[in-house]
Amino acid sequence: MGNIPHIPDIVIGRLPIYLRALNRMIQEEQEYTSSHELGDRLGISSAQIRKDLSHFGEFGKQGTGYNIKYLYEQIRHILKVDRDWPMAVVGVGDLGHAVAHYRGFKMRGFWVACLFDADPSKIGEQVAGLTVQSMDEMEAEIRHQTIKVAMIAVPAKEAQAVANQLVKAGVRALLNYAPITLAVPPDVRVQYIDPVAHLQHMTYYISP
Amino acid sequence: MGNIPHIPDIVIGRLPIYLRALNRMIQEEQEYTSSHELGDRLGISSAQIRKDLSHFGEFGKQGTGYNIKYLYEQIRHILKVDRDWPMAVVGVGDLGHAVAHYRGFKMRGFWVACLFDADPSKIGEQVAGLTVQSMDEMEAEIRHQTIKVAMIAVPAKEAQAVANQLVKAGVRALLNYAPITLAVPPDVRVQYIDPVAHLQHMTYYISP
Repeated sequence: MGNIPHIPDIVIGRLPIYLRALNRMIQEEQEYTSSHELGDRLGISSAQIRKDLSHFGEFGKQGTGYNIKYLYEQIRHILKVDRDWPMAVVGVGDLGHAVAHYRGFKMRGFWVACLFDADPSKIGEQVAGLTVQSMDEMEAEIRHQTIKVAMIAVPAKEAQAVANQLVKAGVRALLNYAPITLAVPPDVRVQYIDPVAHLQHMTYYISP
Repeated sequence: MGNIPHIPDIVIGRLPIYLRALNRMIQEEQEYTSSHELGDRLGISSAQIRKDLSHFGEFGKQGTGYNIKYLYEQIRHILKVDRDWPMAVVGVGDLGHAVAHYRGFKMRGFWVACLFDADPSKIGEQVAGLTVQSMDEMEAEIRHQTIKVAMIAVPAKEAQAVANQLVKAGVRALLNYAPITLAVPPDVRVQYIDPVAHLQHMTYYISP
Protein backbone atom coordinates (compact mmCIF):
# COMPACT_ATOMS: atom_id res chain seq x y z
CA MET A 1 0.00 0.00 0.00
CA GLY A 2 1.68 3.22 -1.12
CA ASN A 3 0.53 6.76 -0.43
CA ILE A 4 -2.86 7.30 -1.97
CA PRO A 5 -3.03 10.83 -3.35
CA HIS A 6 -5.56 13.50 -2.39
CA ILE A 7 -6.12 12.43 1.19
CA PRO A 8 -6.79 15.55 3.24
CA ASP A 9 -3.96 16.40 5.63
CA ILE A 10 -6.47 16.64 8.48
CA VAL A 11 -7.22 12.92 7.97
CA ILE A 12 -3.50 12.05 8.07
CA GLY A 13 -3.28 14.08 11.28
CA ARG A 14 -5.93 11.92 12.94
CA LEU A 15 -4.19 8.60 12.15
CA PRO A 16 -1.55 9.03 14.92
CA ILE A 17 -4.41 9.62 17.37
CA TYR A 18 -6.06 6.37 16.28
CA LEU A 19 -2.71 4.64 16.62
CA ARG A 20 -2.31 5.89 20.18
CA ALA A 21 -5.78 4.63 21.16
CA LEU A 22 -5.20 1.25 19.46
CA ASN A 23 -1.85 0.89 21.22
CA ARG A 24 -3.58 1.45 24.54
CA MET A 25 -6.15 -1.23 23.68
CA ILE A 26 -3.37 -3.67 22.76
CA GLN A 27 -1.75 -3.03 26.14
CA GLU A 28 -5.12 -3.76 27.73
CA GLU A 29 -5.13 -7.04 25.76
CA GLN A 30 -8.31 -6.16 23.89
CA GLU A 31 -8.70 -7.93 20.52
CA TYR A 32 -11.52 -6.16 18.69
CA THR A 33 -12.93 -2.66 18.67
CA SER A 34 -15.55 -0.65 16.80
CA SER A 35 -15.67 2.82 15.32
CA HIS A 36 -18.15 3.62 18.12
CA GLU A 37 -15.77 2.57 20.89
CA LEU A 38 -12.83 4.34 19.26
CA GLY A 39 -14.96 7.43 18.76
CA ASP A 40 -16.12 7.46 22.39
CA ARG A 41 -12.52 7.21 23.60
CA LEU A 42 -11.33 10.00 21.36
CA GLY A 43 -14.29 12.35 21.22
CA ILE A 44 -14.56 11.87 17.44
CA SER A 45 -17.76 10.65 15.74
CA SER A 46 -17.83 7.02 14.62
CA ALA A 47 -18.87 8.18 11.14
CA GLN A 48 -15.73 10.33 10.94
CA ILE A 49 -13.52 7.40 11.93
CA ARG A 50 -15.13 5.10 9.34
CA LYS A 51 -14.77 7.80 6.69
CA ASP A 52 -11.13 8.46 7.58
CA LEU A 53 -10.20 4.79 7.42
CA SER A 54 -12.15 4.19 4.21
CA HIS A 55 -9.57 6.32 2.37
CA PHE A 56 -7.08 3.49 2.84
CA GLY A 57 -9.16 0.34 2.41
CA GLU A 58 -11.55 -1.96 4.23
CA PHE A 59 -10.31 -2.66 7.74
CA GLY A 60 -13.42 -3.71 9.65
CA LYS A 61 -16.09 -6.37 9.33
CA GLN A 62 -19.80 -5.83 9.83
CA GLY A 63 -20.59 -7.37 13.21
CA THR A 64 -17.09 -8.08 14.56
CA GLY A 65 -15.63 -4.61 13.97
CA TYR A 66 -11.87 -4.01 13.71
CA ASN A 67 -9.17 -6.48 14.64
CA ILE A 68 -7.07 -4.12 16.75
CA LYS A 69 -3.61 -5.54 15.99
CA TYR A 70 -4.32 -5.67 12.26
CA LEU A 71 -5.64 -2.10 12.13
CA TYR A 72 -2.69 -0.93 14.26
CA GLU A 73 -0.17 -2.53 11.88
CA GLN A 74 -1.94 -1.14 8.82
CA ILE A 75 -1.92 2.42 10.16
CA ARG A 76 1.73 2.06 11.18
CA HIS A 77 2.45 1.05 7.60
CA ILE A 78 0.45 3.94 6.12
CA LEU A 79 2.28 6.46 8.33
CA LYS A 80 5.63 4.74 7.60
CA VAL A 81 6.30 4.21 11.30
CA ASP A 82 6.63 0.44 10.88
CA ARG A 83 10.35 1.26 10.77
CA ASP A 84 12.61 3.30 13.06
CA TRP A 85 13.38 6.85 12.02
CA PRO A 86 16.62 8.29 13.44
CA MET A 87 16.16 11.85 14.68
CA ALA A 88 18.44 14.78 15.31
CA VAL A 89 17.72 16.98 18.34
CA VAL A 90 19.07 20.52 18.12
CA GLY A 91 19.35 22.43 21.39
CA VAL A 92 20.30 20.58 24.55
CA GLY A 93 18.77 22.82 27.22
CA ASP A 94 16.12 21.59 29.66
CA LEU A 95 13.79 20.76 26.80
CA GLY A 96 16.45 19.02 24.71
CA HIS A 97 17.38 16.96 27.77
CA ALA A 98 13.74 16.03 28.28
CA VAL A 99 13.42 15.01 24.63
CA ALA A 100 16.67 13.01 24.68
CA HIS A 101 15.46 11.07 27.72
CA TYR A 102 11.87 10.66 26.55
CA ARG A 103 10.95 6.98 26.45
CA GLY A 104 7.84 7.47 24.34
CA PHE A 105 9.72 7.37 21.00
CA LYS A 106 10.67 3.71 21.04
CA MET A 107 7.97 1.40 19.66
CA ARG A 108 6.33 4.39 17.99
CA GLY A 109 8.78 4.68 15.11
CA PHE A 110 11.53 7.02 16.29
CA TRP A 111 14.81 7.21 18.16
CA VAL A 112 17.16 10.05 18.99
CA ALA A 113 20.33 9.46 16.97
CA CYS A 114 22.30 12.66 17.60
CA LEU A 115 22.29 15.85 19.65
CA PHE A 116 23.63 19.27 18.71
CA ASP A 117 24.14 22.52 20.59
CA ALA A 118 25.78 25.86 19.86
CA ASP A 119 27.06 26.29 23.45
CA PRO A 120 30.76 25.25 23.60
CA SER A 121 30.35 24.26 27.27
CA LYS A 122 27.78 21.62 26.29
CA ILE A 123 29.71 20.05 23.41
CA GLY A 124 31.17 16.68 24.40
CA GLU A 125 28.66 16.29 27.26
CA GLN A 126 27.01 12.87 27.54
CA VAL A 127 23.21 13.02 27.43
CA ALA A 128 21.09 9.85 27.31
CA GLY A 129 24.06 7.89 26.01
CA LEU A 130 24.88 10.34 23.22
CA THR A 131 27.69 12.88 22.93
CA VAL A 132 26.51 16.43 22.27
CA GLN A 133 28.04 17.63 19.00
CA SER A 134 28.73 21.15 17.73
CA MET A 135 26.62 22.93 15.14
CA ASP A 136 29.63 22.80 12.79
CA GLU A 137 29.43 19.02 12.75
CA MET A 138 25.66 18.96 12.21
CA GLU A 139 25.36 18.96 8.44
CA ALA A 140 27.93 16.21 7.86
CA GLU A 141 26.53 14.03 10.66
CA ILE A 142 22.96 14.31 9.37
CA ARG A 143 24.03 13.44 5.85
CA HIS A 144 26.17 10.57 7.13
CA GLN A 145 23.27 9.05 9.10
CA THR A 146 20.70 9.94 6.36
CA ILE A 147 18.52 11.67 8.95
CA LYS A 148 15.19 13.00 7.66
CA VAL A 149 13.54 14.04 10.94
CA ALA A 150 14.70 16.66 13.44
CA MET A 151 13.45 18.39 16.56
CA ILE A 152 14.28 22.05 17.12
CA ALA A 153 14.61 22.98 20.79
CA VAL A 154 16.65 26.18 20.51
CA PRO A 155 15.64 29.76 21.44
CA ALA A 156 13.23 31.43 19.02
CA LYS A 157 15.82 33.78 17.56
CA GLU A 158 18.03 30.86 16.45
CA ALA A 159 15.27 28.57 15.19
CA GLN A 160 15.08 29.76 11.56
CA ALA A 161 18.84 29.53 11.02
CA VAL A 162 18.87 26.02 12.52
CA ALA A 163 15.94 25.01 10.30
CA ASN A 164 17.79 26.29 7.22
CA GLN A 165 20.87 24.24 8.11
CA LEU A 166 18.80 21.11 8.76
CA VAL A 167 16.93 21.42 5.48
CA LYS A 168 20.19 21.92 3.62
CA ALA A 169 21.49 18.71 5.17
CA GLY A 170 18.48 16.74 3.90
CA VAL A 171 15.99 16.87 6.79
CA ARG A 172 12.37 16.73 5.52
CA ALA A 173 10.34 16.84 8.76
CA LEU A 174 10.84 19.42 11.51
CA LEU A 175 9.20 19.35 14.90
CA ASN A 176 9.60 22.87 16.21
CA TYR A 177 9.40 23.69 19.91
CA ALA A 178 10.45 27.31 19.41
CA PRO A 179 7.51 29.77 19.51
CA ILE A 180 8.09 30.98 15.95
CA THR A 181 6.69 30.12 12.53
CA LEU A 182 9.40 28.66 10.29
CA ALA A 183 9.76 29.31 6.56
CA VAL A 184 10.72 26.10 4.71
CA PRO A 185 10.67 24.83 1.12
CA PRO A 186 7.44 23.14 -0.05
CA ASP A 187 8.90 19.62 0.22
CA VAL A 188 9.63 20.06 3.95
CA ARG A 189 6.96 19.57 6.63
CA VAL A 190 6.89 21.48 9.90
CA GLN A 191 4.81 20.75 12.97
CA TYR A 192 4.72 22.95 16.02
CA ILE A 193 4.63 22.11 19.69
CA ASP A 194 2.92 25.18 21.10
CA PRO A 195 1.66 24.50 24.63
CA VAL A 196 0.09 27.96 24.85
CA ALA A 197 -2.18 27.28 21.87
CA HIS A 198 -3.49 24.20 23.72
CA LEU A 199 -4.00 26.21 26.89
CA GLN A 200 -5.84 28.97 25.02
CA HIS A 201 -8.07 26.36 23.43
CA MET A 202 -9.15 25.20 26.90
CA THR A 203 -9.67 28.52 28.69
CA TYR A 204 -12.51 29.25 26.25
CA TYR A 205 -14.53 26.63 28.12
CA ILE A 206 -13.74 27.69 31.70
CA SER A 207 -16.58 29.59 33.38
CA PRO A 208 -15.33 32.75 35.06
CA MET B 1 -19.29 39.08 24.15
CA GLY B 2 -19.91 35.85 26.10
CA ASN B 3 -19.49 32.33 24.82
CA ILE B 4 -21.83 31.70 21.94
CA PRO B 5 -23.14 28.14 22.13
CA HIS B 6 -22.78 25.45 19.47
CA ILE B 7 -19.46 26.58 18.03
CA PRO B 8 -17.58 23.47 16.93
CA ASP B 9 -14.58 22.70 19.09
CA ILE B 10 -12.42 22.48 15.96
CA VAL B 11 -13.15 26.18 15.31
CA ILE B 12 -12.17 27.10 18.88
CA GLY B 13 -8.97 25.11 18.35
CA ARG B 14 -8.03 27.27 15.35
CA LEU B 15 -8.45 30.59 17.18
CA PRO B 16 -5.11 30.24 19.05
CA ILE B 17 -3.42 29.63 15.70
CA TYR B 18 -4.94 32.84 14.32
CA LEU B 19 -3.84 34.63 17.48
CA ARG B 20 -0.26 33.45 17.00
CA ALA B 21 -0.18 34.67 13.39
CA LEU B 22 -1.76 38.03 14.32
CA ASN B 23 0.76 38.47 17.14
CA ARG B 24 3.55 37.91 14.65
CA MET B 25 2.05 40.57 12.34
CA ILE B 26 1.79 43.04 15.23
CA GLN B 27 5.47 42.46 15.98
CA GLU B 28 6.18 43.16 12.31
CA GLU B 29 4.21 46.42 12.76
CA GLN B 30 1.65 45.48 10.16
CA GLU B 31 -1.77 47.18 10.59
CA TYR B 32 -4.20 45.35 8.33
CA THR B 33 -4.49 41.83 7.00
CA SER B 34 -6.91 39.74 4.93
CA SER B 35 -8.29 36.22 5.22
CA HIS B 36 -6.16 35.43 2.15
CA GLU B 37 -2.92 36.57 3.77
CA LEU B 38 -3.74 34.81 7.05
CA GLY B 39 -4.67 31.69 5.12
CA ASP B 40 -1.45 31.72 3.11
CA ARG B 41 0.60 32.03 6.30
CA LEU B 42 -1.22 29.21 8.03
CA GLY B 43 -2.06 26.81 5.22
CA ILE B 44 -5.78 27.25 5.86
CA SER B 45 -8.24 28.37 3.17
CA SER B 46 -9.41 31.99 3.34
CA ALA B 47 -13.02 30.75 3.20
CA GLN B 48 -12.41 28.66 6.31
CA ILE B 49 -10.97 31.63 8.17
CA ARG B 50 -13.92 33.86 7.23
CA LYS B 51 -16.36 31.14 8.25
CA ASP B 52 -14.59 30.54 11.57
CA LEU B 53 -14.57 34.23 12.48
CA SER B 54 -18.18 34.75 11.36
CA HIS B 55 -19.29 32.63 14.35
CA PHE B 56 -18.27 35.51 16.60
CA GLY B 57 -19.28 38.59 14.66
CA GLU B 58 -18.14 40.92 11.88
CA PHE B 59 -14.44 41.69 12.22
CA GLY B 60 -13.38 42.72 8.74
CA LYS B 61 -14.40 45.32 6.22
CA GLN B 62 -14.84 44.77 2.50
CA GLY B 63 -11.78 46.35 0.87
CA THR B 64 -9.61 47.12 3.92
CA GLY B 65 -9.74 43.66 5.54
CA TYR B 66 -9.06 43.10 9.22
CA ASN B 67 -7.56 45.61 11.60
CA ILE B 68 -4.93 43.32 13.13
CA LYS B 69 -4.84 44.78 16.64
CA TYR B 70 -8.63 44.86 16.88
CA LEU B 71 -9.03 41.26 15.68
CA TYR B 72 -6.22 40.18 18.01
CA GLU B 73 -7.93 41.77 21.02
CA GLN B 74 -11.31 40.31 20.08
CA ILE B 75 -9.93 36.76 19.80
CA ARG B 76 -8.05 37.20 23.10
CA HIS B 77 -11.37 38.17 24.65
CA ILE B 78 -13.24 35.23 23.10
CA LEU B 79 -10.60 32.76 24.37
CA LYS B 80 -10.52 34.54 27.77
CA VAL B 81 -6.79 35.13 27.52
CA ASP B 82 -7.18 38.89 27.90
CA ARG B 83 -6.40 38.13 31.56
CA ASP B 84 -3.56 36.15 33.21
CA TRP B 85 -4.31 32.59 34.24
CA PRO B 86 -2.15 31.23 37.04
CA MET B 87 -0.99 27.69 36.34
CA ALA B 88 0.24 24.79 38.43
CA VAL B 89 3.04 22.63 37.04
CA VAL B 90 3.22 19.10 38.43
CA GLY B 91 6.49 17.25 37.94
CA VAL B 92 9.77 19.17 38.06
CA GLY B 93 12.02 16.92 35.98
CA ASP B 94 13.72 18.16 32.78
CA LEU B 95 10.34 18.91 31.21
CA GLY B 96 8.95 20.66 34.30
CA HIS B 97 12.10 22.77 34.40
CA ALA B 98 11.69 23.67 30.74
CA VAL B 99 8.05 24.62 31.30
CA ALA B 100 8.86 26.67 34.42
CA HIS B 101 11.49 28.64 32.49
CA TYR B 102 9.47 28.95 29.28
CA ARG B 103 9.07 32.62 28.35
CA GLY B 104 6.26 32.05 25.88
CA PHE B 105 3.48 32.13 28.51
CA LYS B 106 3.68 35.81 29.36
CA MET B 107 1.68 38.08 27.05
CA ARG B 108 -0.30 35.04 25.91
CA GLY B 109 -2.49 34.74 29.00
CA PHE B 110 -0.62 32.46 31.40
CA TRP B 111 1.98 32.35 34.13
CA VAL B 112 3.41 29.56 36.24
CA ALA B 113 2.21 30.18 39.80
CA CYS B 114 3.35 27.02 41.59
CA LEU B 115 5.40 23.85 41.12
CA PHE B 116 4.87 20.43 42.69
CA ASP B 117 6.87 17.22 42.77
CA ALA B 118 6.62 13.89 44.57
CA ASP B 119 10.40 13.53 44.95
CA PRO B 120 11.43 14.62 48.49
CA SER B 121 14.88 15.66 47.21
CA LYS B 122 13.26 18.25 44.92
CA ILE B 123 10.91 19.80 47.47
CA GLY B 124 12.16 23.20 48.59
CA GLU B 125 14.33 23.59 45.47
CA GLN B 126 14.15 27.00 43.76
CA VAL B 127 13.13 26.81 40.09
CA ALA B 128 12.44 29.93 38.03
CA GLY B 129 11.86 31.93 41.21
CA LEU B 130 9.40 29.45 42.72
CA THR B 131 9.84 26.94 45.53
CA VAL B 132 8.96 23.37 44.59
CA GLN B 133 6.19 22.12 46.89
CA SER B 134 5.19 18.61 47.90
CA MET B 135 2.19 16.76 46.50
CA ASP B 136 0.63 16.88 49.98
CA GLU B 137 0.47 20.67 49.74
CA MET B 138 -0.96 20.68 46.23
CA GLU B 139 -4.69 20.60 46.86
CA ALA B 140 -4.67 23.36 49.47
CA GLU B 141 -2.34 25.57 47.41
CA ILE B 142 -4.44 25.23 44.26
CA ARG B 143 -7.62 26.06 46.15
CA HIS B 144 -5.91 28.98 47.87
CA GLN B 145 -4.73 30.49 44.57
CA THR B 146 -7.98 29.53 42.75
CA ILE B 147 -5.97 27.81 40.03
CA LYS B 148 -8.00 26.43 37.12
CA VAL B 149 -5.20 25.40 34.74
CA ALA B 150 -2.45 22.83 35.29
CA MET B 151 0.31 21.12 33.34
CA ILE B 152 1.12 17.49 34.05
CA ALA B 153 4.79 16.61 33.48
CA VAL B 154 5.07 13.44 35.56
CA PRO B 155 5.79 9.86 34.39
CA ALA B 156 2.88 8.09 32.66
CA LYS B 157 2.13 5.78 35.56
CA GLU B 158 1.55 8.71 37.94
CA ALA B 159 -0.40 10.95 35.55
CA GLN B 160 -3.93 9.71 36.25
CA ALA B 161 -3.56 9.98 40.04
CA VAL B 162 -2.16 13.52 39.64
CA ALA B 163 -5.04 14.45 37.33
CA ASN B 164 -7.57 13.16 39.90
CA GLN B 165 -5.99 15.27 42.64
CA LEU B 166 -5.90 18.37 40.43
CA VAL B 167 -9.54 17.99 39.42
CA LYS B 168 -10.56 17.50 43.05
CA ALA B 169 -8.78 20.75 43.90
CA GLY B 170 -10.77 22.66 41.28
CA VAL B 171 -8.58 22.55 38.16
CA ARG B 172 -10.67 22.61 34.95
CA ALA B 173 -8.04 22.51 32.19
CA LEU B 174 -5.20 19.98 32.05
CA LEU B 175 -2.31 20.08 29.64
CA ASN B 176 -0.90 16.58 29.74
CA TYR B 177 2.68 15.82 28.65
CA ALA B 178 2.52 12.20 29.83
CA PRO B 179 1.96 9.69 26.98
CA ILE B 180 -1.34 8.43 28.43
CA THR B 181 -5.02 9.23 27.88
CA LEU B 182 -6.57 10.71 31.04
CA ALA B 183 -10.08 10.01 32.29
CA VAL B 184 -11.69 13.20 33.64
CA PRO B 185 -15.21 14.41 34.45
CA PRO B 186 -17.16 16.06 31.58
CA ASP B 187 -16.62 19.60 32.91
CA VAL B 188 -12.81 19.22 32.71
CA ARG B 189 -10.87 19.71 29.45
CA VAL B 190 -7.69 17.84 28.62
CA GLN B 191 -5.23 18.59 25.86
CA TYR B 192 -2.25 16.43 25.04
CA ILE B 193 1.28 17.33 24.08
CA ASP B 194 2.28 14.26 22.12
CA PRO B 195 5.39 14.95 20.03
CA VAL B 196 5.28 11.46 18.51
CA ALA B 197 1.82 12.07 17.03
CA HIS B 198 3.25 15.15 15.27
CA LEU B 199 6.24 13.16 14.01
CA GLN B 200 4.02 10.35 12.72
CA HIS B 201 1.90 12.91 10.92
CA MET B 202 4.98 14.08 9.00
CA THR B 203 6.64 10.77 8.13
CA TYR B 204 3.60 9.98 5.97
CA TYR B 205 4.88 12.58 3.53
CA ILE B 206 8.55 11.57 3.44
CA SER B 207 9.50 9.65 0.31
CA PRO B 208 11.45 6.50 1.16
